[in-house]
Amino acid sequence: MALVVQKYGGSSVGSTERLLAVARRLIAAKQRGDHVVAVVSAMGDVTDELLEKALEISDCPPEREMDMLLATGEQVTIALLAMAIHSLGHEAISLTGAQAGIVSDSSHTRARIQEVRTDRVSEALDAGQIVIVAGFQGLTPEGEITTLGRGGSDTTAVAVAAGLGADVCEIYTDVDGVYSADPRIVPNAHKIDVVSYEEMLEMAATGARVLQLRSVEFARNHGVVLHVRSSFNDNPGTIVREADATMEQAIISGVTHDTSEAKVTIRDVPDRPGVAADVFGRLADANVNVDMIIQNVSEHGTTDISFTTPKDDLVRARQAVGRVVADLGARGHTVDESVAKVSLVGAGMKTHPGVAAKMFRALADADVNLDMISTSSIRISCVIDAAQVGTAVRALHTAFGLDEGSVVAEVAPAAAGGAS
Amino acid sequence: MALVVQKYGGSSVGSTERLLAVARRLIAAKQRGDHVVAVVSAMGDVTDELLEKALEISDCPPEREMDMLLATGEQVTIALLAMAIHSLGHEAISLTGAQAGIVSDSSHTRARIQEVRTDRVSEALDAGQIVIVAGFQGLTPEGEITTLGRGGSDTTAVAVAAGLGADVCEIYTDVDGVYSADPRIVPNAHKIDVVSYEEMLEMAATGARVLQLRSVEFARNHGVVLHVRSSFNDNPGTIVREADATMEQAIISGVTHDTSEAKVTIRDVPDRPGVAADVFGRLADANVNVDMIIQNVSEHGTTDISFTTPKDDLVRARQAVGRVVADLGARGHTVDESVAKVSLVGAGMKTHPGVAAKMFRALADADVNLDMISTSSIRISCVIDAAQVGTAVRALHTAFGLDEGSVVAEVAPAAAGGAS
Repeated sequence: MALVVQKYGGSSVGSTERLLAVARRLIAAKQRGDHVVAVVSAMGDVTDELLEKALEISDCPPEREMDMLLATGEQVTIALLAMAIHSLGHEAISLTGAQAGIVSDSSHTRARIQEVRTDRVSEALDAGQIVIVAGFQGLTPEGEITTLGRGGSDTTAVAVAAGLGADVCEIYTDVDGVYSADPRIVPNAHKIDVVSYEEMLEMAATGARVLQLRSVEFARNHGVVLHVRSSFNDNPGTIVREADATMEQAIISGVTHDTSEAKVTIRDVPDRPGVAADVFGRLADANVNVDMIIQNVSEHGTTDISFTTPKDDLVRARQAVGRVVADLGARGHTVDESVAKVSLVGAGMKTHPGVAAKMFRALADADVNLDMISTSSIRISCVIDAAQVGTAVRALHTAFGLDEGSVVAEVAPAAAGGAS
Repeated sequence: MALVVQKYGGSSVGSTERLLAVARRLIAAKQRGDHVVAVVSAMGDVTDELLEKALEISDCPPEREMDMLLATGEQVTIALLAMAIHSLGHEAISLTGAQAGIVSDSSHTRARIQEVRTDRVSEALDAGQIVIVAGFQGLTPEGEITTLGRGGSDTTAVAVAAGLGADVCEIYTDVDGVYSADPRIVPNAHKIDVVSYEEMLEMAATGARVLQLRSVEFARNHGVVLHVRSSFNDNPGTIVREADATMEQAIISGVTHDTSEAKVTIRDVPDRPGVAADVFGRLADANVNVDMIIQNVSEHGTTDISFTTPKDDLVRARQAVGRVVADLGARGHTVDESVAKVSLVGAGMKTHPGVAAKMFRALADADVNLDMISTSSIRISCVIDAAQVGTAVRALHTAFGLDEGSVVAEVAPAAAGGAS
């Protein structure tokens, strides 16, 4: 008998019919003899509707009260899903985040899970019930209702799976799994069967939207095997787990892209020790997230500093940079919002030199100019013109033999080895 | 500094504008220097919409899950109301029933409050916050979410007021207070300024819909002073409190009516000891509520037994009575759904004989035929034809001098004294 945690997002529970379909899927798992826990999000657009109501009343509602409000969304889903299972003749019990023992810190609207007390879930499972847990929400030790922010329901599912020692945490979504590239851009992208935590982390961090970085990190830290799959069919999806000898390591697992960032450049900053620390210290103080950083010293004793930041942080970034420019006596700053980041991710990169050279060649052949470059041991990212993102992703997907049906291309060993 | 609990029903919080109006009213009370607790219901039709969703999924959803679902309605209201108060520049905190310490038994959908642990509410009040509590819901000692059933939010308000030792529990509604009769039937009915718990209980039990019997009982048992008033204006409403020497006792406080019951008659039941116990034991077993009972022995050694019961219970009543008729060898049974109950309520009845005689005379003069009669020490009720309910209520309202502007009529002492 296995213990399975299944997580269903908002689109998977968006209507009465969808709820009944999820109920049947849970019952099927139960009938295979497994212990079954479901973690669910708010139905369809419910969260947006609640947000809208709040904004009718206040431009800036207190975060504690936002959590009080938004937590009702998942509570409605769990109750209706339990009813659906009962109506099909099976036993189920719904549990709020608080009841399921999801203990969080008190950072309202973006709380972190501190602990999962699984006693109540375990009791219900032992009593033969399908257990339905409200995702996205927790309770502080002081009894305050919190929400977990972006990717919260996935994180709840992984945390419950970790707490229970589940055999697998299935993340149901509206796509078949993790793809080698966004199928809307690369029509012959293929579904990845197995991917390591490390690769999935890099993919999530660079634009793969099917899993949130946060839940993958949680899964890696607790050794929870993830299975990303569709709630609309029974196809096997993508398994995310620890890399081991049995996992065939593709050199490149996927090509990701991200158009949510902007590039900021500070011109002619005096080139003296501590300047970069000063600039990025100020940005951190202003709560601006910084992704890639490049600094180039010119011949005139000044330097240009460029960085990328989420467009969501741009208002704060402009203010902070404006102050930095004045204080350091730099010439000024520019902001480019029409940039995209294209990334190549693959654990095999570590042992196959020449990937970077091949990547740059492929992009050059496609007439894509590189604006910034950054790397990790299993990832290479380039910032390019946003208008070329489709061209770039398709060129890389083809060059590295990722197109469905193609033979995996060998990477030629090169003197300038390694991924960078 | 006084401590005030204010309860707002669904129509009082039915829109963003109404919520802001309630927020302003709470702030005004706070600015008068009082400690303020608000108890609120779900907004407008929210509860009905949730019920509808549940019934789309299941004809007979588990009661535990209904409570899980319905409790979200009040949770949305408390969050939005707290936001509204914040947006007007004042401090507020919302608390679910669980957080406010409303401990209930585990009778889902109709739970009874067992205890109110007011620590958290008191702390928030001491911190200068307006405290907003979700009505209608509780938590069992085992951590299960319950709802309190009909009149639940009023009961929450009274229970919180009792727990805190509040000076007054204000029940805000869409009418100005408790009236001497339903103003839709008696246009010159007057608002009652003060009424005793006993009278209010009789009025609530016989059809006055502004307060639920249950919350009045709770208030009486804990000595909570109620003030029933309108959320649409600042007029003083009706005070409900312990009768004492300072309260001028009207002979008759009000005329109530109720068309929600049906009359069932079992014909020609053998007249022998234990028959009534048998009949009503069976009805109790079938969970049928019985209001008035009449038994008349005929000359043939058989008897007719009539009783009234809520129309909601009629399906169960018919089944139970059908079995009784067969088992006892009665002739059959009839059901009359077009009956109404008209009641006269007044604490002064105890000391003023002749009220009953005057009531029957007034009804006779209005050509209203009496079908059944029942009394308590401060109430007389008659069952009549439903078509005559308006005529009967108006006739009694006038006969007992209750019409606005009229002089209170003296009741003539009569030999057949007392209320009955």
